[in-house]
Amino acid sequence: MFTRKDLLGIRYLSAEEITHLLDVAESFRDISQREIKKVPALRGRTVINLFFEPSTRTRTSFEIAAKRLSADTINISAAASSVVKGETLLDTARNLEAMSPDLLVIRHPSAGAPHMLARVCRAGVINAGDGANEHPTQALLDALTIRQHKGRIAGLKVTIVGDILHSRVARSNVYLLTKLGAEVCLTGPGTLIPQPFGDLVERGVRLEEKIERALEGADVVMVLRIQRERQNAAFFPSLREYAVHYGLNLKRLERAAPDAIVLHPGPINRGIEIASEVADGSRSLILDQVANGLAVRMAVLYLLLGGGVLRPDGEGEANREAALISEESGSGLGKVDR
Amino acid sequence: MFTRKDLLGIRYLSAEEITHLLDVAESFRDISQREIKKVPALRGRTVINLFFEPSTRTRTSFEIAAKRLSADTINISAAASSVVKGETLLDTARNLEAMSPDLLVIRHPSAGAPHMLARVCRAGVINAGDGANEHPTQALLDALTIRQHKGRIAGLKVTIVGDILHSRVARSNVYLLTKLGAEVCLTGPGTLIPQPFGDLVERGVRLEEKIERALEGADVVMVLRIQRERQNAAFFPSLREYAVHYGLNLKRLERAAPDAIVLHPGPINRGIEIASEVADGSRSLILDQVANGLAVRMAVLYLLLGGGVLRPDGEGEANREAALISEESGSGLGKVDR
Amino acid sequence: MFTRKDLLGIRYLSAEEITHLLDVAESFRDISQREIKKVPALRGRTVINLFFEPSTRTRTSFEIAAKRLSADTINISAAASSVVKGETLLDTARNLEAMSPDLLVIRHPSAGAPHMLARVCRAGVINAGDGANEHPTQALLDALTIRQHKGRIAGLKVTIVGDILHSRVARSNVYLLTKLGAEVCLTGPGTLIPQPFGDLVERGVRLEEKIERALEGADVVMVLRIQRERQNAAFFPSLREYAVHYGLNLKRLERAAPDAIVLHPGPINRGIEIASEVADGSRSLILDQVANGLAVRMAVLYLLLGGGVLRPDGEGEANREAALISEESGSGLGKVDR
Repeated sequence: MFTRKDLLGIRYLSAEEITHLLDVAESFRDISQREIKKVPALRGRTVINLFFEPSTRTRTSFEIAAKRLSADTINISAAASSVVKGETLLDTARNLEAMSPDLLVIRHPSAGAPHMLARVCRAGVINAGDGANEHPTQALLDALTIRQHKGRIAGLKVTIVGDILHSRVARSNVYLLTKLGAEVCLTGPGTLIPQPFGDLVERGVRLEEKIERALEGADVVMVLRIQRERQNAAFFPSLREYAVHYGLNLKRLERAAPDAIVLHPGPINRGIEIASEVADGSRSLILDQVANGLAVRMAVLYLLLGGGVLRPDGEGEANREAALISEESGSGLGKVDR
Repeated sequence: MFTRKDLLGIRYLSAEEITHLLDVAESFRDISQREIKKVPALRGRTVINLFFEPSTRTRTSFEIAAKRLSADTINISAAASSVVKGETLLDTARNLEAMSPDLLVIRHPSAGAPHMLARVCRAGVINAGDGANEHPTQALLDALTIRQHKGRIAGLKVTIVGDILHSRVARSNVYLLTKLGAEVCLTGPGTLIPQPFGDLVERGVRLEEKIERALEGADVVMVLRIQRERQNAAFFPSLREYAVHYGLNLKRLERAAPDAIVLHPGPINRGIEIASEVADGSRSLILDQVANGLAVRMAVLYLLLGGGVLRPDGEGEANREAALISEESGSGLGKVDR
Repeated sequence: MFTRKDLLGIRYLSAEEITHLLDVAESFRDISQREIKKVPALRGRTVINLFFEPSTRTRTSFEIAAKRLSADTINISAAASSVVKGETLLDTARNLEAMSPDLLVIRHPSAGAPHMLARVCRAGVINAGDGANEHPTQALLDALTIRQHKGRIAGLKVTIVGDILHSRVARSNVYLLTKLGAEVCLTGPGTLIPQPFGDLVERGVRLEEKIERALEGADVVMVLRIQRERQNAAFFPSLREYAVHYGLNLKRLERAAPDAIVLHPGPINRGIEIASEVADGSRSLILDQVANGLAVRMAVLYLLLGGGVLRPDGEGEANREAALISEESGSGLGKVDR
C-alpha cells in the first residue's frame, strides 16, 4: 500500500496512497488523548530534524510525533550547523547518513533540497518545507481536518486566499485536493498569483482576483499566512492594504457556504490575513489542524519506517525530478514544474 | 493532599501543601544518587519547556527532573519560537495545547504569563519565573535546603539581601517563609526595596536599610543575584558601590548566628553580591540548593501529574488573579498584588 | 583493562588501553546497522553535552552514541549557558555536578578546561576538544578507520598535512600513532609547524616542509581542516596560496603508496585543503570516519560507565597536568606540554 522510502511531495503520491496515509493518521489520532501517549512502534529508530529555516511549530510537531512512537530524536538547526563552516548540503547529508539515522526530516529555503538528500541517503527523507515548492505534511493535515469535519474531500469547493505564488502550502494543497477530486479556487493580489499558471489550469484550478467571487459558495476557506519579511518587496502590497482587500473577516465569510470551515497553517497574523472574529470563531479549525498535524506526522514516520515495506532502490520518480530542480532555483509554481 | 493542576505561585499554596511538596521532594532526592537514576512514574507523558528568557540552569534542572521520571521532554526557546513571527503568547499556548502535552513549564519576562496559559490549557502549567512576580520552585528548593540543615522553617530568622524590588526569588520566598512561620527581614539599597511594601508589612516582614543590622542573629542568609543588565538604570548603584555596601563577606557574616547558613539562587557573581570566601565557605549551601532543585522539580512534576488527583476545573483562585495581572505589567512587588 | 573515570587525552593512555578501546568500538560498530539501533547498557544514566564551541558534528555523534546506549542526554551550548551571565567555568561545572550527571562531554576553546572539570567532578569527563590541546575521540576514530582498512597501525607511514601548530586533531593523532608504533610525518606551511617541536622529535616524528616529500610512500594521508576564521592572521597564508602549495589533489596523492588511504576530520573545504576528486575518490574514508566516530564514542561512554570499573580517586596523572595548564593558556603544542 505505501512502499516509499521518502515523502518528498504530494505531487508524487497517488490518490490511494494519500487516502491510506489519512486513514493511518486517523488511527493514530487517539494516542495523544491517552494518559500514556506512547507506543513502541519505532523503538530504537533515529529521527534527525534538520531545520535550515526556523520553525518551532513544525519541528516540535515532528519531535513529539517521533517520541510518541518511541523513536530517538536529534535536532539540528542551521545556525548551529556545519553549514556556517562552509560545508555543502550534500556533504552535510552524507555525514549525517554515516551515523545511520532512519529518517531525516528536512526544512530548507531551496526547492528540491530534500530530493537531493533522498538521492544520496539510504535513510528516508521527509520534506518539511522546501522553498516555495512543497510542504506535504501540511497538505495532509489540512486534508485530514477537512475529512474529519466534512466526511469527504471529493466534490468540495475549496478556496485558497493569499500569496499563492510563494506558498508551498498552497502548492501541496493544490496537488492533494485536485487528486482527491475537490474543486480548487485561488485568490489573492494579482502580483501574488502565478500568471499564467501552467499545470494548475490543466488540473481545473480556477483563478479569481476578487476574493468575494472566490469565496462564493466555498465549503472550505484556506487562509495563507502573510510573510511579513516579504512586505518590502516591490510586488507586495502593504499589510494594511492587504488586510483591507484580502483579509478574511466575518462579512466576507458570509459569501461562503453556511457550514463553511476555515483553515490556516499558522502562526496567524491577527487583523492582517485573518480577523480575530474569524480565527476565534466557531468555523475556525486552526487548532484541530495542529492536533491533526501530530497524527499525520506519526503516520508518515510510521509508514516510512515501521509500517511500510522499504523500496531499496529509492523513489525513481523523485530521482528524476531532483535532477531538474536546481538547489538555487527561485521555484515559482511554474518554474519548478518544468 | 495536592490536587492542583498548575503551580503558578507560592502565594496560592497552603502551608500543608508546601510541606507535602517538600516531603515528596525529600523522598525523590535519593533517586539521583542511584546508579539507575530513573523511575517510570511519568512514562508516556510529555513535558514542554517553554523559555522566553534564557536560563540554562533552570531549564536543565526541569529537563533532567522530567527525564528521571521517564517523561518525554521538548525544549522551546524564545529566539527560535513563533513569537518572533508575531504570534501572541495566547496563540502559542493554544497551539502547544493542541499537541496534547501534559505539562508546560514556562519562564516569561511578564508577570502573569503562566496564569494566562493555565486558563486556556488543559495541560498543567508550572511557573519557572514570571517577570518580577514569582519563581515558586526556587522558593521550594530553598525551603528544602533550609529544612535539610536546620530541621525546620518555623521560628528561623531569615535575612534576604539584594535587589528585593525586582526579585521573583525574594517574592516567592517571602510568601513561603511567612506561611511556614519564619521571621523574614529584607535588606538592600533604598532604591531597590519596595517602599511602602504593602502586603509584606502585614505578613510581618521587617525592612532594614543597613545590612549589618539585618544580619544580626540571622539563621539563614539568602543572597540575591545582582542582575548586571540592570546596572545602568538610574535607580541602580554601580557594581563596585553595591559590593562595598551590600556584598556578603566573612566580616559581615559574623553578625549572623554562629551556625547560620548561606543560600544563593545562582549563578553567583563572585566579588559582587557574594565574596568567594563566603560562596566557597563551609556555611554555603549553594550546591545543595542545586541538588535539591532537581528533587523539588521531580516532586512538582510528579504531584501535578502522576501523584495527585487532577482538578478538572482548573485553579479558581489563579483564574481570578490572572484577570488582574496584565501581560505587559511592570510588576513591581506592590503592583502585581493589587 | 580500562579503569579510568575520564577521557582527557590520548597522552594519558597506554597502548593497551587504546587497543582495548578500539576493540570495544569495533564490537559496537554493528549496532548502528541493525533495525533496533539500541542496547540498554546505559539506561538511567545521564550524559551532559557541554559545548562552548559550536560543533554539530561532534555533538550529534556523542548524542546519538549516548541514545543508542539508552542514556538520557542533555545539550548545553555556550550561547545559551550561564557563562554569558559571567559565571566561571568551575562554578558551571560544580552546578552541573550537583545534578548528578554520570558523564560530562565538554568542548572548550581553552586547553586544559576538561582537566579542571575532571578534578572537581565525581562525574566522568570526556574531552571533546580543548583549544589546540587534544581531541582524543577524533584520534581514536581515525585509528579505528586505519585498522579497519589496513589491519594494523604499527609500522604504517602516516603523513599529516596542514596547520599542525593549532590542531588538536594532529596532536592527539601524534600521541596515538606513535604509541601504537606508526611512523609519523608532519607537513604544512613553515609558520604552521611547531618549530622546534620539542617532545615530538623525541617521539620520532619527522617534519617536512615540502608536502611532496612528506607524501612519499605514505600509507595513510591525514588532511587537516583549514580553519577559515584564522586566515586573516599574520602567520596564515591566503586560502588560494594554501590550496596551491598544500591542497591534496590526485597528482600529489600519486606520491603516496599505491593503496594509500585518505582521512579528514570534516567538515571539508572542497578545493582548499582537499580537492573534490580526492575527497570523493575511492581512497577517501571520510564517511567511514564518521561511522567509526559513533562506534568509538559508544565505546568511550560504555567503558567509562558501564563497562569499566571506576577508579574513585580520579586520574592522578591528569590531576597533576591540570595544575600546570592554565585555563587561559594560548596552548601551542609546546606550551601546553611544559
